[in-house]
Amino acid sequence: MQAVQEGTKWVLRLDEGQDLFEALTAFAEKEHVRAGAVLFGIGMFRRATFGYWDGTQYQPHDLAVPHEVVALHGTIAWTDGHPSIHLHGAVAGPDHRLVGGHLLRATIGILQEVVIETFPSHSFDRPLEESIGLRMLNLEPAPHR
Amino acid sequence: MQAVQEGTKWVLRLDEGQDLFEALTAFAEKEHVRAGAVLFGIGMFRRATFGYWDGTQYQPHDLAVPHEVVALHGTIAWTDGHPSIHLHGAVAGPDHRLVGGHLLRATIGILQEVVIETFPSHSFDRPLEESIGLRMLNLEPAPHR
Amino acid sequence: MQAVQEGTKWVLRLDEGQDLFEALTAFAEKEHVRAGAVLFGIGMFRRATFGYWDGTQYQPHDLAVPHEVVALHGTIAWTDGHPSIHLHGAVAGPDHRLVGGHLLRATIGILQEVVIETFPSHSFDRPLEESIGLRMLNLEPAPHR
Repeated sequence: MQAVQEGTKWVLRLDEGQDLFEALTAFAEKEHVRAGAVLFGIGMFRRATFGYWDGTQYQPHDLAVPHEVVALHGTIAWTDGHPSIHLHGAVAGPDHRLVGGHLLRATIGILQEVVIETFPSHSFDRPLEESIGLRMLNLEPAPHR
Repeated sequence: MQAVQEGTKWVLRLDEGQDLFEALTAFAEKEHVRAGAVLFGIGMFRRATFGYWDGTQYQPHDLAVPHEVVALHGTIAWTDGHPSIHLHGAVAGPDHRLVGGHLLRATIGILQEVVIETFPSHSFDRPLEESIGLRMLNLEPAPHR
Repeated sequence: MQAVQEGTKWVLRLDEGQDLFEALTAFAEKEHVRAGAVLFGIGMFRRATFGYWDGTQYQPHDLAVPHEVVALHGTIAWTDGHPSIHLHGAVAGPDHRLVGGHLLRATIGILQEVVIETFPSHSFDRPLEESIGLRMLNLEPAPHR
């Protein structure tokens, strides 16, 4: 993995076999990113699971073969002392058709180019909204006491 | 809805039931955004209509059920004294397959995380190109007289 | 084609009939972009070919009719004295379904709105990784001797 910085922006290159969420979590912890956005990622996923929220739970879809990643976007917040990363994505398989949704897990194939924007004067939170059963991005959390 | 600013960038959280175009129009008016870009949005659409331009008109496609938003990108210009917002997008339904195109209308489901970049030293226009029948982004309009 | 700059960012409007890779290559040469990212592009492709990497080669898919561009992302590096542009994308056709993958070639239909971020203190490289048979983004190349 490589990571270079320019002002508030970062470009990352993730490598074959890396777990996407583990890599982004380690990056956010190392660089103290408490508010950020994954502007995009492209590359391949060797494996991934996408979810569709049916109102109660995420209905999962597992990729059977590697897919080209054509959309990957999301936000980085901080919850209970750890990064909380919310990603949606879409991928194209051998038939060039797309599947996607809420990204539950993904393993990089070959490489992944990722551009990240950070918002250093902010700290986002993602508290559990119990009435819905989902963690919801909060851009203006009360100051930590 | 929440909106926080960092330099020329904004992060917005739109909420359940909000009309996407109305919310972005109100944001652009309030913050005087005369040149901007929706870098991405993710979340859900409760309802939405996508269009395919067949050379004469947009052939519409309505979502029958809520979909996960996996791509949402576009530009903010200013035309006839009001914001002009051009968005394309793609969404995944219960079968995890994607549909999308030119976004004609959309209503947020649960939430939508949106990152916006502004270009404060510019003012974009979107005049009607009568030979085509579409409004076309103009990055360098003549100064307003 | 129009191109306007704001800090390290650019907004481009490509026009009907332009070759996407030729236009972006000419832009990167003219503006000396040695490290950049195509944050997104939207519009139409009159023609395009997407590839799926099967481990040995790109399996191609040609569009038979114009498609709405809903995802277009990638990176700009510099290799052997010339820009090296890596793009992935997804498009929606008359049935509003999406196809996409690694973008091999594309011709603009009507227009394409593109937002580019540059990283002026960096120079990316994309050397051939012979064991894989692909050029791989290198964010930290050794200084040119």
